[in-house]
Amino acid sequence: MRAIVKATAQPGVEIREVPVPTIGPGQLLLKVLRAGVCGTDLHIYAWDRWSQGRLKPPVTLGHEFVGEIVAVGEGVLELQVGERVSCESHIQCHHCVACRTGSGHVCENTRILGVDVNGGFAQYVAVPAENAWRVPANVPIEVAAVMEPLGNAVHTAFAGPLSACNIAVTGCGPIGLFAIGVARAAGAARVFASDVSPYRLELAREMKADFVIDASQESLAKRVREATGGRGLDGVLEMSGSPDAMREGLDALRNGGRLSLLGLPKEPFELDWNRLVIFKGITVHGIVGRRMYDTWYQMDNLLGSGRLDIRPAITHVMPMERFDEAIELLRTGHAGKVVLIPWGQEG
Amino acid sequence: MRAIVKATAQPGVEIREVPVPTIGPGQLLLKVLRAGVCGTDLHIYAWDRWSQGRLKPPVTLGHEFVGEIVAVGEGVLELQVGERVSCESHIQCHHCVACRTGSGHVCENTRILGVDVNGGFAQYVAVPAENAWRVPANVPIEVAAVMEPLGNAVHTAFAGPLSACNIAVTGCGPIGLFAIGVARAAGAARVFASDVSPYRLELAREMKADFVIDASQESLAKRVREATGGRGLDGVLEMSGSPDAMREGLDALRNGGRLSLLGLPKEPFELDWNRLVIFKGITVHGIVGRRMYDTWYQMDNLLGSGRLDIRPAITHVMPMERFDEAIELLRTGHAGKVVLIPWGQEG
Amino acid sequence: MRAIVKATAQPGVEIREVPVPTIGPGQLLLKVLRAGVCGTDLHIYAWDRWSQGRLKPPVTLGHEFVGEIVAVGEGVLELQVGERVSCESHIQCHHCVACRTGSGHVCENTRILGVDVNGGFAQYVAVPAENAWRVPANVPIEVAAVMEPLGNAVHTAFAGPLSACNIAVTGCGPIGLFAIGVARAAGAARVFASDVSPYRLELAREMKADFVIDASQESLAKRVREATGGRGLDGVLEMSGSPDAMREGLDALRNGGRLSLLGLPKEPFELDWNRLVIFKGITVHGIVGRRMYDTWYQMDNLLGSGRLDIRPAITHVMPMERFDEAIELLRTGHAGKVVLIPWGQEG
Amino acid sequence: MRAIVKATAQPGVEIREVPVPTIGPGQLLLKVLRAGVCGTDLHIYAWDRWSQGRLKPPVTLGHEFVGEIVAVGEGVLELQVGERVSCESHIQCHHCVACRTGSGHVCENTRILGVDVNGGFAQYVAVPAENAWRVPANVPIEVAAVMEPLGNAVHTAFAGPLSACNIAVTGCGPIGLFAIGVARAAGAARVFASDVSPYRLELAREMKADFVIDASQESLAKRVREATGGRGLDGVLEMSGSPDAMREGLDALRNGGRLSLLGLPKEPFELDWNRLVIFKGITVHGIVGRRMYDTWYQMDNLLGSGRLDIRPAITHVMPMERFDEAIELLRTGHAGKVVLIPWGQEG
Repeated sequence: MRAIVKATAQPGVEIREVPVPTIGPGQLLLKVLRAGVCGTDLHIYAWDRWSQGRLKPPVTLGHEFVGEIVAVGEGVLELQVGERVSCESHIQCHHCVACRTGSGHVCENTRILGVDVNGGFAQYVAVPAENAWRVPANVPIEVAAVMEPLGNAVHTAFAGPLSACNIAVTGCGPIGLFAIGVARAAGAARVFASDVSPYRLELAREMKADFVIDASQESLAKRVREATGGRGLDGVLEMSGSPDAMREGLDALRNGGRLSLLGLPKEPFELDWNRLVIFKGITVHGIVGRRMYDTWYQMDNLLGSGRLDIRPAITHVMPMERFDEAIELLRTGHAGKVVLIPWGQEG
Repeated sequence: MRAIVKATAQPGVEIREVPVPTIGPGQLLLKVLRAGVCGTDLHIYAWDRWSQGRLKPPVTLGHEFVGEIVAVGEGVLELQVGERVSCESHIQCHHCVACRTGSGHVCENTRILGVDVNGGFAQYVAVPAENAWRVPANVPIEVAAVMEPLGNAVHTAFAGPLSACNIAVTGCGPIGLFAIGVARAAGAARVFASDVSPYRLELAREMKADFVIDASQESLAKRVREATGGRGLDGVLEMSGSPDAMREGLDALRNGGRLSLLGLPKEPFELDWNRLVIFKGITVHGIVGRRMYDTWYQMDNLLGSGRLDIRPAITHVMPMERFDEAIELLRTGHAGKVVLIPWGQEG
Repeated sequence: MRAIVKATAQPGVEIREVPVPTIGPGQLLLKVLRAGVCGTDLHIYAWDRWSQGRLKPPVTLGHEFVGEIVAVGEGVLELQVGERVSCESHIQCHHCVACRTGSGHVCENTRILGVDVNGGFAQYVAVPAENAWRVPANVPIEVAAVMEPLGNAVHTAFAGPLSACNIAVTGCGPIGLFAIGVARAAGAARVFASDVSPYRLELAREMKADFVIDASQESLAKRVREATGGRGLDGVLEMSGSPDAMREGLDALRNGGRLSLLGLPKEPFELDWNRLVIFKGITVHGIVGRRMYDTWYQMDNLLGSGRLDIRPAITHVMPMERFDEAIELLRTGHAGKVVLIPWGQEG
Repeated sequence: MRAIVKATAQPGVEIREVPVPTIGPGQLLLKVLRAGVCGTDLHIYAWDRWSQGRLKPPVTLGHEFVGEIVAVGEGVLELQVGERVSCESHIQCHHCVACRTGSGHVCENTRILGVDVNGGFAQYVAVPAENAWRVPANVPIEVAAVMEPLGNAVHTAFAGPLSACNIAVTGCGPIGLFAIGVARAAGAARVFASDVSPYRLELAREMKADFVIDASQESLAKRVREATGGRGLDGVLEMSGSPDAMREGLDALRNGGRLSLLGLPKEPFELDWNRLVIFKGITVHGIVGRRMYDTWYQMDNLLGSGRLDIRPAITHVMPMERFDEAIELLRTGHAGKVVLIPWGQEG
């Protein structure tokens, strides 16, 4: 089969023929229908320091995808050949404190599909059956492909109060755009979205943010104060990794608000803890992955009921063969979410 | 001024002339603009056992209302003459454990406007300034009049998880109807509404319940299982006080779900605790009043942002003079919420 | 090997020879070192209605035990032959909503060791490796045997606020006695214990309850008011299944308190919901099993650190052969927890 | 009367005669019995940048004290002359979002006794009656004097799970020492205490920390791993304001743990957010003041029940006249908590 492989310890990828995976007990073999490209894939492509320390080439990339079950391993009773499933990319160890207490998203020994084990940028992929999620019938295939990053947005949004709250999303990349939709569907009263890219701010508008702020031009905190009668934000969903966005978000929070951090800063940075966190009584959440599988139920309900539509954030659907082009679109900020069509699925 | 007064310890009310209230330090004098009629008013009208034990006639009735500030007492700095305010009806003691720990809604010494002290079925009413809530400008006056009972619905709905959840409202009287709107606006994935009155079920549809169940004809639990792929409800907002509705709601809950009880049963009743509560790991909330003032901020956000519209549940607006007729409409189940127009406000 | 078997659908048990269990992938074979007798065993012995509906004889009884691993099944890497493990008795399905969201204690398809599958009243028992808990070295073997019911007490106690709280335990059977110790070790400020048996009240004193109330002689609510300056209880851990205890507990709670129900009422019963639950803003928890495995970590920490000592509640240690005698002791209320020594372990 | 006054905008204080305060409605006049010296008093004494921006001399200092009520203002019904009360130092505005939602500890307009208004380093002090807390009779007067800083420790400790948890206190100044006692009394399984001062580490031992770590000599994370079987800490109570202590604490936390920050860093500092917060799924709490008045009830219960004894942390009791000496003891780290005896109370 064809696959996108980080073949050697250097920048770039190879598209090449590899064997169809074999499956063991408790696993599924999926024919990949669609796959999403993630910011992490950019890092792996560029072969940055994190990638160098983590990946052991050769590895088939791709950790966001939907597939059709074509074979089920021994002991798998709850899923059948022919079903359409989206996949959780984090494989739990099931033995650490986190896994044993319902917090497998912070498993001490997580292995990630498309990073630590072969992933879904290929015609077929093997996954643990427990990581597969039967997709509601009404969910479009492009959406089903990106439930993994959508789950990041849901996890971040649901980390604190949301309903009837004033919420800001700082950073309108794909997950930020998803988060706008999630916050709206989940009952936030007012959703503020900030970024510095006009392209992304336009997408934020399409995702129905109530207030769209160009952070290079105006102050989030000021805009929030005006729109909330001076009360400030109840929560910030930080999706940019930008120290300035984090500071601005903290500034815009009311005392006692929450800052939920999904965006990864490029490097350590300074913060005025006293003024922005301690004296304000702020709660800061570090967020990683998706709650397994609470987040998936939440997504399933939001998508399955038709409350949430993330299609405006999916700007490109293109053949997997054109992966280099997808990377370039993302690298230059000319895309929301990019979805890839595997070889043989184009029709 | 004119007022609706429970004048003596017997059924009925009197409409009569009473003095305009005087106000002390920390109080406001309001010109009443609109007032809502509550189920409790029916009990007081009928002079049931609860009323006989609680009210000390003469008392001016009415605990749901909006007014314009016409005078402010000594020490009131945050509100001014001319502002439009809706009112929390529970007057806290500020000294019991509940009041001292942010739970004034379960104050051990609550006094209630229109029950324990003179209320708002009158041309003027005196209220503690802390109980007044400045209404967002975009909120229609009939809606502002009934923020108190709307707050019951919000309090009940927000007592447990709501966003992305499958929620049932059992009982579609005025507060149940409000709760449908609240659950939708606050991000519930699917809202089920049950009642036995065709009139109320039609109003439930107008409030945009996703599934409307005539409990005299079909099983809530069965309908829920079909619509949720067998998962069941995450939460039940019990608004009827009916033992059958409570049992049916518990049956329809998934294991680990929550039942939030606002409806008051007429008398003690039996429950199969083992099967319906303990083995299922259910959490049951007794709900009273509104969180002071968390619930009001939530309402303010939902109404002020335009996310919530409860107007379909307000079926009648009529002069206060026609109070007997309003009572009759409610008693016979031919109304959602009834709003009264005080003397002199008709124009 | 020898085992205590519910051999036929009638009262009583048989002690007889049965084959040593074989184990499959993911399982452990344990040599049983000690086992506890539970109230459920009395019901099964008496062959009450619940037992008749649930058990399918022949079944080896016993769901509380500690054993030494003598064989490990395929795929078990985290535990080794020779280790001493206590066991969670609930076997999760891993596929229902509860299991998939960290709430396996309310699994929709739970199977229970010693009830649905063969248990630990035997020389050997087969258990899923995931249900085994490595016991801290300092924990005495009798205590290790009863971590399962101790976990019921921990789960109930930890279902709501505990530290610095005023807590009552209603019902001083074995789990109630454990709960007294747990509440003390976990930081409750004052622990009230009530029962009607002088024998059990004496054990409550040995478990260091601060206030011991004979419910046949005095009012819990009155005693609580005196000891708390009128504030009332923050929480009640209901361990008796007695409707009167539940009503008395609700009465003694402060407004906004919590009632956590583990005790199983014999039959449905009436409650004055308005006065005792709704107007007081009470939260009621139905509790079953142990959180998997949060509760086990909590127990491990409390026992391993030496903070908790439950030995005063373990009143009898006797050979498994004398099972009928153990049942009689429990049935007549002349025992706290009874621990059994399997054949061959007496020395 | 005599008082310790920040008389002018420069380092130091003056002990001088000032008028006995007069009281208005809702206030109390207290004869001060004992008062505690706080780290904040050092900053004010030294007249650091924060002090220069905040204080408006002349101000009588002192925000930790116990007094006897000698006069009650109009409208005060719940307290009487002759009662002994400790005081919350934060005066709420009662109008901001925080105050109106049970979070007065993060009031947007807090005024602090001894900082913004005259405090308790004097023979008499005027306080709002709502800030007064009737002290349980069994609480020694020196302890009653320092309930305000003890409340900081309680607030920090209770900001997350505590019972049956492994908890570290980083920084063993007076509040850190209190926090050790609180964590033990509130049911933490193992309490780790770290500091770099041998004097303070000795006091940590006297407060019964289970593990005492000299952070200049050994690694907290390493010691924790050994003592917890590799599991790590469930929570860190950060009391030092040291960036290194914060990093070390984060490192020692298990994934999903919590870091509660009370210590104030001297200046902004860098943090590796990805490794220490985001990938670990940590929750960070900014903590200020005491929950009003939840924290006071918790303290009252812990002290009143005799579970908590903080006397080992109170190392010096000396006449108020010797304030300069008290400041010097604290500045050089040769004291735990210092309590002052006002003029006329020495006998």
